Amino acid sequence: MKNKAITSRDVDFAKWYTDIVREAHLADYSGVKGCIVFEPNGYAIWEKMQKVLDEKFKALGHQNVYLPLLIPESLMRKESELIEGFAPEGAWVTEGGKNKLEERMIIRPTSETLFSDYYASIVKSYKDLPLLYNQWCNVMRWEKETRPFLRTREFLWQEGHTVHASEEEAKAETDRMLNVYKDFFENYLAIPVITGQKTEREKFAGAEYTCTVEALMYNGVALQGATSHYFGQKFSKAYGIQFLNKENKLENAYQTSWGASTRMIGGLIMVHSDDNGLVLPPKIAPRQVVIVPIGQDEEITSLADKINSLLNTNGIVSFVDKSEKSPGFKFAQHEVNGIPVRVEIGKRDLENGKICLARRDTRERIQIENDDNIVKNIQHLLDDIQSNLFNTALRRNQEKTFTAFTLDDVKDIMSKQPGFVKAMWCGDENCELKMKEIRGTKSRCILENEKPISDKCVVCGKKAKHYVVWGIQY
Amino acid sequence: MKNKAITSRDVDFAKWYTDIVREAHLADYSGVKGCIVFEPNGYAIWEKMQKVLDEKFKALGHQNVYLPLLIPESLMRKESELIEGFAPEGAWVTEGGKNKLEERMIIRPTSETLFSDYYASIVKSYKDLPLLYNQWCNVMRWEKETRPFLRTREFLWQEGHTVHASEEEAKAETDRMLNVYKDFFENYLAIPVITGQKTEREKFAGAEYTCTVEALMYNGVALQGATSHYFGQKFSKAYGIQFLNKENKLENAYQTSWGASTRMIGGLIMVHSDDNGLVLPPKIAPRQVVIVPIGQDEEITSLADKINSLLNTNGIVSFVDKSEKSPGFKFAQHEVNGIPVRVEIGKRDLENGKICLARRDTRERIQIENDDNIVKNIQHLLDDIQSNLFNTALRRNQEKTFTAFTLDDVKDIMSKQPGFVKAMWCGDENCELKMKEIRGTKSRCILENEKPISDKCVVCGKKAKHYVVWGIQY
Repeated sequence: MKNKAITSRDVDFAKWYTDIVREAHLADYSGVKGCIVFEPNGYAIWEKMQKVLDEKFKALGHQNVYLPLLIPESLMRKESELIEGFAPEGAWVTEGGKNKLEERMIIRPTSETLFSDYYASIVKSYKDLPLLYNQWCNVMRWEKETRPFLRTREFLWQEGHTVHASEEEAKAETDRMLNVYKDFFENYLAIPVITGQKTEREKFAGAEYTCTVEALMYNGVALQGATSHYFGQKFSKAYGIQFLNKENKLENAYQTSWGASTRMIGGLIMVHSDDNGLVLPPKIAPRQVVIVPIGQDEEITSLADKINSLLNTNGIVSFVDKSEKSPGFKFAQHEVNGIPVRVEIGKRDLENGKICLARRDTRERIQIENDDNIVKNIQHLLDDIQSNLFNTALRRNQEKTFTAFTLDDVKDIMSKQPGFVKAMWCGDENCELKMKEIRGTKSRCILENEKPISDKCVVCGKKAKHYVVWGIQY
Repeated sequence: MKNKAITSRDVDFAKWYTDIVREAHLADYSGVKGCIVFEPNGYAIWEKMQKVLDEKFKALGHQNVYLPLLIPESLMRKESELIEGFAPEGAWVTEGGKNKLEERMIIRPTSETLFSDYYASIVKSYKDLPLLYNQWCNVMRWEKETRPFLRTREFLWQEGHTVHASEEEAKAETDRMLNVYKDFFENYLAIPVITGQKTEREKFAGAEYTCTVEALMYNGVALQGATSHYFGQKFSKAYGIQFLNKENKLENAYQTSWGASTRMIGGLIMVHSDDNGLVLPPKIAPRQVVIVPIGQDEEITSLADKINSLLNTNGIVSFVDKSEKSPGFKFAQHEVNGIPVRVEIGKRDLENGKICLARRDTRERIQIENDDNIVKNIQHLLDDIQSNLFNTALRRNQEKTFTAFTLDDVKDIMSKQPGFVKAMWCGDENCELKMKEIRGTKSRCILENEKPISDKCVVCGKKAKHYVVWGIQY
């Protein structure tokens, strides 16, 4: 039986998405245009993402810092590509207290500027390097079209900013952090990704090059999941970050930055959820197991408590729903909220020595013995859900990944059912613009270790330079 | 031997404070006026504070959410006391993208407005209540005079906002959260506090009443550490938060809010630190123990690693300093950074079966046996430092707490050495203003369970209404 409050995702994907956000109480529209209220269910997912990523960052030697929210315009202007990229979507503070400011300030759309200004004041010698800093914060970009989590004027993210004494080390950091994101997407979010470099046109303003983690949604639309940038000496030259190297000579430092945002929550929804509500991979679900005792029987509720406490001591986040609602109501509610596993304890089952497990991903119900293996069985089921979600998404990606040799091939694919389109490219921006005319198709990234399928550009037919994956994007 | 980079706190307390902030690398001045860069050592203290408080909040049933950074002016104006209080120190966004906004927006100085607007849209019935939400975020107040951590234009904090179906329940929440703060200050920050209600003049704009946690710094100046407000129906009337009560009648909800900020880091410094740098209570120190092997001897470094791993598995956060600096340099550095315990492992000691522990608070060095009791001994030492810091602060508070019967008493105390001054008060704001003429002395809070020392107001001599503690404040 289908949840009636939720539009089918095959009928109207955009409406389905907003139905999920509302029914699972992830976010609410706020009285502030283009901004959302992160409700407890949505914010708890972000907290879990933060916890996992933060531990990974720290294990690699990164430290957290916090820099100011506001950036004076003149400071931002020192790096011309950056101001050009972000000024058109800036939120500007022009009055402070009762006075008009002498210089307007932008609410940070990203913090390269402030980090570089700070680094310029503290970096003196190669002995101070590397500096591996990260911050968790809010940023703002004055978007016209917004959609909860995917694109909002204010969003939450982390931005890592590092300084190194050599090009090699900074490039290795760019690569290392790209792999942290890839691992996070695949092994926690259960979202298979393609990684690679962006083209010149699609790279971050001010970067030498940008690496990206690209995912495919249920409807075949692509989502940029996280990015890792190599800056070379661009910012260090603009902001004067110099260090005495081992030869005792002044040298401009080498920098990187890398970030991932609350947009990942949107990706999670669009990859795994279904017509019955949210579906969460167990490793990112804030609550992994709900235990529903059916009836008020003493034996049943005490067994529920016992299982709950066993699960919790074994590192599984579970809770017992003893509220006065009917079991059917509870089942539907926990389903729409995406709790990965529901344990049902009913009188009749129990008399036969059984309890029932319901898995959210396939909605199957499994009877198991009420014995000492309960925790182990639930842990196995959580593991199985985690890998099933990844495999389902991977299969879908494979089905929705195509190769194209001509512009007509691309038109044909994108008009029928969009997805990842792999095709050769000559490296000319004009050909990228031609692709963009097809429903906004953009290069996602350059494929590194795949064998080229031809030697001709999919657009102009001239000599191909790169094998590229293309897609329609959020 | 004294750290030469740090001014003595008895000579120039303000300079001593900024010296500590700089030398312990807690914060750096930024290119943005009135805002600081939280450096790794400073931010790590905030992360530890967040972790402890967040766990306490959640254990009491609170959930985290996140609301927008910007508040439209008209929304703010619905509660007149609030806008009057905060508009003069607002940072206003007037341009978004390339356009001038139709209505300017204030960067949140606090979020009662947005929470109330949100609650008005989701609260329907007493069955929805209570709502116990909290958010961790940045806020901005356009201060003229700033000082790292104590008063900066942007700061970080948590703000809890709750909605209840009855006055009793909301008042109990106000009280409960005040006690959470009191417990946190005394048992984690090792800072003894006085708690009680603020006077009408000193309460939060828009609150029915405000409860506060008041601490005394080393120099006898008072610091408001955290506050908990009872709003009654003030905001629910202004923003239309109504619920159907058990009698099926519409009723305005009862609200509270409570907050604590990065200002607590300033309090920590000013209560415990000394002329040699930062001193941190072990329960809030991001790193509790540093192990310094003296020399490169294999036996010594492997023992350092062994002790480190033993400490970590026992829940003590420790690290080994194997850098190439001299032992003396390392000792000074870890001292200025406030690592509570230093373990020194030297060849000669080890030959006698000993290692050496140095405690940061008293700077004593203690030889202990190199045996199976090392972890237990270090844990005991950490516990002892924690309670010693609290007791030292408590003794100082007692020495700096005075009683006054006349204005001359107050003048005499405040001109010699400021501190907490306990005195009777008639309840008239004019008498508060008279007190303020004495070096800015303000009421800190009304004492609840203490026996009045007289029946006459310390200022006007008329009938006293309250027993109040007064102080000069940061």
